[in-house]
Amino acid sequence: MQLSPSLTQLIEALRCQPGIGPKSAQRIAFHLLERDRQGGKQLGHALTKAMDEVGHCQSCRTFTEQAVCDICSSVKRQDSGLLCVVESPTDVLAIEQTGQYQGLYFVLMGHLSPIDGIGPKEIGLDILESKLQQGGINEVILATNPSVEGETTAHYIAELCHKYQVGASRIAHGVPVGGELDLLDGMTLMHAFSGRRAVNQN
Amino acid sequence: MQLSPSLTQLIEALRCQPGIGPKSAQRIAFHLLERDRQGGKQLGHALTKAMDEVGHCQSCRTFTEQAVCDICSSVKRQDSGLLCVVESPTDVLAIEQTGQYQGLYFVLMGHLSPIDGIGPKEIGLDILESKLQQGGINEVILATNPSVEGETTAHYIAELCHKYQVGASRIAHGVPVGGELDLLDGMTLMHAFSGRRAVNQN
Ligand SMILES: [Zn+2]
Ligand SMILES: [Zn+2]
Repeated sequence: MQLSPSLTQLIEALRCQPGIGPKSAQRIAFHLLERDRQGGKQLGHALTKAMDEVGHCQSCRTFTEQAVCDICSSVKRQDSGLLCVVESPTDVLAIEQTGQYQGLYFVLMGHLSPIDGIGPKEIGLDILESKLQQGGINEVILATNPSVEGETTAHYIAELCHKYQVGASRIAHGVPVGGELDLLDGMTLMHAFSGRRAVNQN
Repeated sequence: MQLSPSLTQLIEALRCQPGIGPKSAQRIAFHLLERDRQGGKQLGHALTKAMDEVGHCQSCRTFTEQAVCDICSSVKRQDSGLLCVVESPTDVLAIEQTGQYQGLYFVLMGHLSPIDGIGPKEIGLDILESKLQQGGINEVILATNPSVEGETTAHYIAELCHKYQVGASRIAHGVPVGGELDLLDGMTLMHAFSGRRAVNQN
């Protein structure tokens, strides 16, 4: 004897979430049906809406439902001449939460990983290159993760910056090697920003 | 600077799931947007459908989108004369997975808890009583959890059975005291069923 089709489907569908196994999925489904149908409906609606409407900012590639995100639209940010390159939108969020950085971002949505077929184009470096070419950026802050791939990606972008004679710096102080940027506390991130050093460009 | 409205709403809505804190919600939202939009859409659809369509079986109170569930509709099950009382639909699932029990169920959707205002009516004991009155049940197997509330509830139902001269038994052997029924392996559950003993009814 099986559960009803809608319930079986729900339990199966819940497992698309990382970290949710079959037992957790069952518990979540029963919890929502027994105690929080309103919450379940809101989640259903929010998922459908977000999956349909949220795309990428044309300028920085972060998630947004607008053509260009709020940060990229800010004249004050544009005038800063600063562009911070990160791997993921969660990194933007973590840096914004420090309240100390007032420049623009560029979100790679990953890092260089030739083994997985992820080259410069897959992480938007063609878009970044045309930005550097256009001018208006005085310094690129390389805030990729302190992993091997993150360092390789930072080095690659530093060379791009050198080509267009734009300064490049790497956040350094306070970021633990092998750690993940978006798990850091705000204080450590602030130190990492203020302690950045220029990158040797050949 | 905040995330876009749809994304903020999604992260907030994901937290209706037990065990999902703000950090997990953020990771799930980004994972779905970056790598599994199809899964996210399916989950949205499955949630909306289940919250709207899944109700309670008129006969046993378990979750179903039909008026009466498949188990209650089975003539073979009706003819068994056995009625197993459990606290939750997950318990039905756990017992069904042993493949050994061929009777009917009654799902309390909880247990007696006067402090929380949960009396006999809140767990459907009026419906159970009219079942006992109607006849056709030879034995009620009390398979509530081996917690204080589960034992109290089992005792209360045993008295109801006594009133209508229906036999009552309590699953016993193999169920660890303080444990939860739906976390047991199938073998332990089978032992618990075969080792059941008659309940003293005053
Ligand atoms: Zn943007
Ligand atoms: Zn039923």
